[in-house]
Amino acid sequence: MTDATAPGAPIEPSFDDVIAAISFNADGLVPAIAQAEGSGEILMMAWMNRDAVLETLRTGRVCYWSRSRKGLWRKGETSGQMQRLKDFRVDCDGDTLLVIVEQDGVACHTGRRSCFYRALRDGKLEIIQDVETDPSVLYGHTHK
Amino acid sequence: MTDATAPGAPIEPSFDDVIAAISFNADGLVPAIAQAEGSGEILMMAWMNRDAVLETLRTGRVCYWSRSRKGLWRKGETSGQMQRLKDFRVDCDGDTLLVIVEQDGVACHTGRRSCFYRALRDGKLEIIQDVETDPSVLYGHTHK
Repeated sequence: MTDATAPGAPIEPSFDDVIAAISFNADGLVPAIAQAEGSGEILMMAWMNRDAVLETLRTGRVCYWSRSRKGLWRKGETSGQMQRLKDFRVDCDGDTLLVIVEQDGVACHTGRRSCFYRALRDGKLEIIQDVETDPSVLYGHTHK
Repeated sequence: MTDATAPGAPIEPSFDDVIAAISFNADGLVPAIAQAEGSGEILMMAWMNRDAVLETLRTGRVCYWSRSRKGLWRKGETSGQMQRLKDFRVDCDGDTLLVIVEQDGVACHTGRRSCFYRALRDGKLEIIQDVETDPSVLYGHTHK
């Protein structure tokens, strides 16, 4: 028989003070910036609700809230491009999160490393990053 | 007499295609992540409206929209901690911006380099960055 409250049993943190430090917006969401460990590259920005924050902290795998699908979005669940949590930060007023991650493969659904692949050049937006992985490979189908 | 349409006169880009690429939310705002050039450190996240984007692009000094003051927020106008625009990027679905900046002094109103100075350590949030500049110096008054 196991007893989670037995002396010596590992105590899982409740993360209550982390949740209390976050100002979720009127929709119960908070933006989370994902930055690659090491390179420091900004990979993407997405949203989390309370459950996504808790799942991220408990599992060490980054989980967002999909506003379009209205459900938890376990990054990499479909594409395999998982994000392993390396650090979790909260900003001064608690209304933005920063997750520092080890990114498996590419972060962007277009198959590019980062979602921020368009940059201003001579007054216009230009694509500055190549596609590294064919999106049909990421999502298991072609767009024919 | 000057004539902006004279041959040889510099033509200021309209930035129309940049604006068209941005999906402003129902409030007319888009989140903008500020990253330090060189170190790659994430300094802050704030919001821009169309006018703030255009002012940032035209002046090369980062301008946000203050949701609390409901006005343009020329970063550094009060504190002197200006952000000079080094690169401007738009994400894949156009609903987040990334500005790469040269930050004068500190970015955070608490006097820390970055707003993301709280990090998860042993299940709790811990302050991982020191105050570099007394906020009373930044805002010209003390909090006595």
